[in-house]
Amino acid sequence: MSEQEGITIKKSDDFSEWYTQVVQKAELADYAPVQGCMVIRTNGYALWENMVKTLDKEFKKYGVRNAYFPLFIPESFLKKEAEHFQGFVPECAWVTIGGKTKLGERLAVRPTSETIIYSMFSKWIRSWRDLPMKINQWCNIVRWESSTKFFVRTTEFLWQEGHTAHETIKEADKMMMDILKVYQRFIEDYLAIPVLTGKKSDREKFAGALTTTTLEALIPDGKAIQMGTSHNLGQNFSKAFNVKFLDRDEKEKFVWNTSWGVSTRMIGGLIMVHGDDKGLIIPPKIAHTHAVIIPIFYKPAEKKKVLKKAEDIKKKLEKELGVILDDRTEYTPGWKFNEWELKGIPLRIEIGPKDIQKKQVVVVRRDNGKKIITKESQLTKKVNLLLEDIQKSLFNKARKLLKDNIRTVKNYEEFKKVINKKRGFIKACWCGNESCEDKIKQETGATIRIIPFKKEKVFSNCIRCGKKANEGVYFAKAY
Amino acid sequence: MSEQEGITIKKSDDFSEWYTQVVQKAELADYAPVQGCMVIRTNGYALWENMVKTLDKEFKKYGVRNAYFPLFIPESFLKKEAEHFQGFVPECAWVTIGGKTKLGERLAVRPTSETIIYSMFSKWIRSWRDLPMKINQWCNIVRWESSTKFFVRTTEFLWQEGHTAHETIKEADKMMMDILKVYQRFIEDYLAIPVLTGKKSDREKFAGALTTTTLEALIPDGKAIQMGTSHNLGQNFSKAFNVKFLDRDEKEKFVWNTSWGVSTRMIGGLIMVHGDDKGLIIPPKIAHTHAVIIPIFYKPAEKKKVLKKAEDIKKKLEKELGVILDDRTEYTPGWKFNEWELKGIPLRIEIGPKDIQKKQVVVVRRDNGKKIITKESQLTKKVNLLLEDIQKSLFNKARKLLKDNIRTVKNYEEFKKVINKKRGFIKACWCGNESCEDKIKQETGATIRIIPFKKEKVFSNCIRCGKKANEGVYFAKAY
Repeated sequence: MSEQEGITIKKSDDFSEWYTQVVQKAELADYAPVQGCMVIRTNGYALWENMVKTLDKEFKKYGVRNAYFPLFIPESFLKKEAEHFQGFVPECAWVTIGGKTKLGERLAVRPTSETIIYSMFSKWIRSWRDLPMKINQWCNIVRWESSTKFFVRTTEFLWQEGHTAHETIKEADKMMMDILKVYQRFIEDYLAIPVLTGKKSDREKFAGALTTTTLEALIPDGKAIQMGTSHNLGQNFSKAFNVKFLDRDEKEKFVWNTSWGVSTRMIGGLIMVHGDDKGLIIPPKIAHTHAVIIPIFYKPAEKKKVLKKAEDIKKKLEKELGVILDDRTEYTPGWKFNEWELKGIPLRIEIGPKDIQKKQVVVVRRDNGKKIITKESQLTKKVNLLLEDIQKSLFNKARKLLKDNIRTVKNYEEFKKVINKKRGFIKACWCGNESCEDKIKQETGATIRIIPFKKEKVFSNCIRCGKKANEGVYFAKAY
Repeated sequence: MSEQEGITIKKSDDFSEWYTQVVQKAELADYAPVQGCMVIRTNGYALWENMVKTLDKEFKKYGVRNAYFPLFIPESFLKKEAEHFQGFVPECAWVTIGGKTKLGERLAVRPTSETIIYSMFSKWIRSWRDLPMKINQWCNIVRWESSTKFFVRTTEFLWQEGHTAHETIKEADKMMMDILKVYQRFIEDYLAIPVLTGKKSDREKFAGALTTTTLEALIPDGKAIQMGTSHNLGQNFSKAFNVKFLDRDEKEKFVWNTSWGVSTRMIGGLIMVHGDDKGLIIPPKIAHTHAVIIPIFYKPAEKKKVLKKAEDIKKKLEKELGVILDDRTEYTPGWKFNEWELKGIPLRIEIGPKDIQKKQVVVVRRDNGKKIITKESQLTKKVNLLLEDIQKSLFNKARKLLKDNIRTVKNYEEFKKVINKKRGFIKACWCGNESCEDKIKQETGATIRIIPFKKEKVFSNCIRCGKKANEGVYFAKAY
């Protein structure tokens, strides 16, 4: 990486170009030579690996087990749930030839797996003893896209999709909410991104769901991003795929399903929320590498001593943390500082001859650039404290951004002004009719991002039609 | 699981039917409603998860990092390496429609990713400083199949594919061999399956490779199964995709590539090699659950005490091991014994009122059915020793089977007799001509499974043409 390969634009000047530069220059992802597709490079994939590891452990605490279902879904399966088909068919990639044979029925490359999974559930579930059934799969998903936005909108992405079957709607509701809370804890505690949670309107909910719950974060350009969803599918799919169980009362009943997912899109949110003009900033709790050690020496005589000390420090720290010692000799320390800042490593540790003499180490925070000089004997403790503090600071900064960008408006003029200038989330009252929701979208580009779980007090008439409002909801423009 | 749901056929009577029953009844996999596809159920996927975890750690020791490349490969990419295209095009599933648009160029669902990955390498590699580049991906693969054999031959399967680029052929050769050794250690030490290793003949090698190395195991029905391969691709792909680097001497040179992979097929090998008439046997080192505790009581008065003790034992063991306490009351102990034997859990721990009185526990080995009575205070130690011994016993048993089924033959009559009756590996001499190799395959169904790394002494003329032989090689019928 030469000097000119750093980020050449400010985040505040051209957010979109800034984002594309960070993704490519920090080697998180690259464009692929296939329509709408990207390559997730090693630095991006390391983030995903840590997300998978952390979430997978959480899911298992709820009795969820992993499995794997086919990539291909016959068109007739998708058609069995009418809304689902309408929602997904325009986005499907279709396999029409297998080997040398034209297929009798075309196969969708899975845009989501409800249909194929519940067709199997109908074979596996016989009685109440088989319930609840809780299954998750980590896999790739394809939804045909004409435009590409790294991590946020691509033809193919990676995700997990949980699918469960329950005896009652109450149990299914609890499952949906339990997982939403798992997601919220993960996104707030690990990714350091605060979210608003609530329900989707009928217009915005998952095709085929009874209820969709969502987590929405704020991007610094004022747009919202959906970080994950958890659905109660009711009996829509169990009726379409005949998933029945013999209950304790000897009666056959349809099961109640939930499905829920988060994807590599979270990586996009993380980059956008935390990154700065120097590049990526990785929250320590999701980082693969927590600290990079840069040995500094100018005379050959110093080299051996400094490298030895750097090795010692590495050995000590890597018992608990991910540490890289950058001992390449073909690059200067300054060049290395830039590279690791671009790549977002939370802490830099500098060690030179003077530091060795004074039995000290220089630690530099990636999030605010502050230099901390610490005694070598205190280093492990200090590093851990700093990492905790960085994690907290990143979250607090993002929370302030979110709070500062939730605005309450009481009329449509004000609504349009905010959505055009400041954006962010707008709390406004709505009559509950889809026609107002549609018009607002057409006229402003904003959609209802969440309907709060606890009905918010009505403080004006419906901002669009002026009739009696039903509830207060949150609008935003969204990715 | 009722009594009649156990395995109803002996492994020695109808191996193929026995295998299908074990896979389905132990809930390892199930048929999917899509041509040639299967569903990997939770018990099967748990094996894969442990395989992934163990191997991934090993790869990383060699500096390999994970990434993710697109599922779709444009046909023109596959065509760039002629042999590769010939080898894979008959097996591809083709996407011809994206959304509502008929595509200008059809896209193969990846049958392997050399072409897409090396097209990216050509963008990322500039100078010797970028080498070696060592990347791996865990993903799904599609090769169109008309028949299905769970785990062994399916249209879609899961695997890892490593791809590396090096400055010299020597380095690439070393990488290929290093990984082959990683695979061998894993398959022998964790899966408890001994393998023969060596090179493939030109006829059998990977389409586009310079050298293919392989690991071959013996299945109890006398057939061989390929458990993994590691290739030196030479400069075939770097020339096709223009992957060049500026060397220290300021000259542009093509890189040398390797690729290597193992897949969910290993699960098939594991089931076939170790399973018995009661069902699956999981080698302890790859097991998710090492022991199942069955509380035994007949009078309600005993229940509380026995369950309490069972809980205590579980808590103690699960500090180090995977443990299930089967405290379901709707099934009898005998029913549970059968179920967990079918599912292959290495140890069963029985605990009843008399055992509590005597401060003892009954431990039963899945591999040989032996009952061991041990003092409760010694349990953890004893369980660990037993697990080690089971691991060793399974390997030794499989090694004996392999050794007993390597036969040396000196003429074609003998060769045909062995291949028709006893099967196994046949060591025989070969002139080195592909025409003899082809004829042997046509006439007997046997192929050259490995050419030993160290040339074996010639002990007869070529078994097929009778002319001077070049080397001793290993033949077998294979899955």
